[in-house]
Amino acid sequence: MIEYRPLKIALLGAGSVGSQVARLILENRDELAARVGAELQLAGVLVRDKRAARATNIPADLITTEPDALILGADIVIEVMGGIEPARTLILQALNSGSDVITANKALLATHGSELFDVAEQVGAQLYFEAAVAGAIPIIRPLRESLAGDKIKRIMGIVNGSTNYILDRMDTTGISLEQAMAEATKLGYLEADPSLDVEGYDAAQKAAILASLAFHTEVPLEKVYREGITKITSEQMAAAKRDGYVIKLLAICESIAADSEHSDEGISVRVYPAMIPLEHPLASVRGAFNAVFVEAEAAGSLMFYGAGAGGVQTASAVMGDLVSAAKRHVAGGPGLADSVHADLEVLPISRIQTRYQITLEVTDQPGVLAQVANIFAHHNVSIETVEQSAKMIEAETTAWLEIGTHQASDKALAAVVAELESSAAVEQITSVIRVEGV
Amino acid sequence: MIEYRPLKIALLGAGSVGSQVARLILENRDELAARVGAELQLAGVLVRDKRAARATNIPADLITTEPDALILGADIVIEVMGGIEPARTLILQALNSGSDVITANKALLATHGSELFDVAEQVGAQLYFEAAVAGAIPIIRPLRESLAGDKIKRIMGIVNGSTNYILDRMDTTGISLEQAMAEATKLGYLEADPSLDVEGYDAAQKAAILASLAFHTEVPLEKVYREGITKITSEQMAAAKRDGYVIKLLAICESIAADSEHSDEGISVRVYPAMIPLEHPLASVRGAFNAVFVEAEAAGSLMFYGAGAGGVQTASAVMGDLVSAAKRHVAGGPGLADSVHADLEVLPISRIQTRYQITLEVTDQPGVLAQVANIFAHHNVSIETVEQSAKMIEAETTAWLEIGTHQASDKALAAVVAELESSAAVEQITSVIRVEGV
Repeated sequence: MIEYRPLKIALLGAGSVGSQVARLILENRDELAARVGAELQLAGVLVRDKRAARATNIPADLITTEPDALILGADIVIEVMGGIEPARTLILQALNSGSDVITANKALLATHGSELFDVAEQVGAQLYFEAAVAGAIPIIRPLRESLAGDKIKRIMGIVNGSTNYILDRMDTTGISLEQAMAEATKLGYLEADPSLDVEGYDAAQKAAILASLAFHTEVPLEKVYREGITKITSEQMAAAKRDGYVIKLLAICESIAADSEHSDEGISVRVYPAMIPLEHPLASVRGAFNAVFVEAEAAGSLMFYGAGAGGVQTASAVMGDLVSAAKRHVAGGPGLADSVHADLEVLPISRIQTRYQITLEVTDQPGVLAQVANIFAHHNVSIETVEQSAKMIEAETTAWLEIGTHQASDKALAAVVAELESSAAVEQITSVIRVEGV
Repeated sequence: MIEYRPLKIALLGAGSVGSQVARLILENRDELAARVGAELQLAGVLVRDKRAARATNIPADLITTEPDALILGADIVIEVMGGIEPARTLILQALNSGSDVITANKALLATHGSELFDVAEQVGAQLYFEAAVAGAIPIIRPLRESLAGDKIKRIMGIVNGSTNYILDRMDTTGISLEQAMAEATKLGYLEADPSLDVEGYDAAQKAAILASLAFHTEVPLEKVYREGITKITSEQMAAAKRDGYVIKLLAICESIAADSEHSDEGISVRVYPAMIPLEHPLASVRGAFNAVFVEAEAAGSLMFYGAGAGGVQTASAVMGDLVSAAKRHVAGGPGLADSVHADLEVLPISRIQTRYQITLEVTDQPGVLAQVANIFAHHNVSIETVEQSAKMIEAETTAWLEIGTHQASDKALAAVVAELESSAAVEQITSVIRVEGV
């Protein structure tokens, strides 16, 4: 039943995602029309260079390099160009001219999200962004709608496919970080400058978006604590495996209550590599896949798993948003805007308690364990497990201590590490890594 | 911003789910009001016996045994009584009086869903049912909305927590089906009559609902092929494990294309235990958890994981629907009704091709393998792997053949099994099981 005028769709960008969105709109024209109740007309596709090669065939008469007329005439604008500018300006232009906007641009949302959402609210337009976090995985809509009557306690996500691929290869084959990065580059998972991925910047952007949704709070990117995977060694991987763990780069968004030592409450948003037990559902997320593990008060543990990137996969998420936006044009309705603003404080990493696993190379002499244990006790860091091993190398015996702690603050742990470093009993600290999901 | 009159909520049922829904509505009153833009007033709770014990405190003046006045005065009716009647009659009454309805009743939807949806469409009311499939896991909304611009090819779900617990215990501890069932009964996972779970009836109801959503087609319960887990042995479990598989009860909904032998196309909806590779994301779904694995054309592989049952978990899904329904009351909008009806044919199991693993006890004589291979060849079932083993038991040598097939039809396989049974070379067929997810 087509009961409404055709809706004009402007597509900004024709790269790996955009060209697939164009294809899906054109190929599924009849089905989309039946589903929405109105025809979805691809009005034009904004590109930088008309002659560039595209992954799919876009009719030449749709291609344009002029954004203004395209945006002005559109009911719905899809932004899949990436980058901050001109994407930001064009989205603002679209919102101000009354269009709903769908974007897959996590960098823009993480840095200018509140500006865009404010404008959208002022003009009564909708801003959809399912594709901006975890590619094809429907995570934004469940957070905004399905769990709307529940309270989210914690989100733990593998939200960067490239680093998950690298860590997975290190775990399953024993190769070094450098070798795994070379493989990832070869497969096109890493850019020429890989730091966006391996230093955790990409994951931090997604963490900021997830936290702002889960806790109805603006999360500035600079308040997201971030460590990348560049210091992870194959020895750490092997040790984790031996103990029943795997190392993953986690984006964690958590509600933090006041406790006996701290009167402030708020949220923590952080990205770092951590050991998680092999039985944890996130441990089985292999290759370049993404997954978001959510703990909610009533729903308990949930996990959303799928492809975190890829042109056609991300295009699927854009299409879901497009159908929602188009249906709302036809039938009206509340849209997705959240009316609750909690404005919780984003707490610094020093406020967080986690478990740690610390590996030390120590002198193989009596009393060493007691000395090391004293250092932990001195800073009130409680030890949960100790494993001792020794090896004869060229007539010298070297001993290792692998110490697992109970929950400890970042600050206390840093003090322990500093004192261990200056201790005569300790020859080298070979690994300090957090443990999550236990 | 409360900008709308209070909405009256009628709750039918105060069992493990209902009592939690009542608690969440009452406890989160302010937050729900802020989110919806209207106060959600719990107008009354229908029970059978006013004096029965409840899991949570419901104010006595809200409890009633009279449905008529409660339903007539309600904006939104939540049905969590379970069973076919009086749930069906009360839902029809609610829809006909103009209320939106939220139900967690999979048995009712699987048997009378089309009647209820037809009435809802006629009167312009909405019928929400996120809680009816896979408890707390948001799967209905992603299928209806997030993937609305994509095409679903296949759904493979672990949708019954009790049987997953039983199979998981058999897999991890080596205990027998009977022992695992006894454990599940002790934990309250199985009813006095466990056949609803272990014979696959519950999973079949959920498969029918998932398939109807994924393929926009009415799926009568009697067209769902169903096998339970009651014939699964600890030997099969151990053999699967040895080969890198685990046995799970799967609900499969699949789009089937025409092929060289069959001109008809349609969908297959079926429930049976099958071996899946340990690397498959569903293999790591442990204990009583549920998960739904979706393969879509553009999105690729997705998985939704979480608690499949439990009062408070299921209540979380009901609350998500309640917020959606209430927001739609305040702001209007398209609701969730699907406008596309594909009416695909539900194909019989004989039309399906799967892989099989067959284990035979054979006489330990030369030529046996050739005889067995001939039987497979005779019915055009192609063998992919053969493993042979022998054991000396009380001076008698017994040999086993473990044969993995390529894709074969149910019919061809049945013919192979029949001929193997009558073959002099075969002493016993010890296992025939399907293989999925490879």
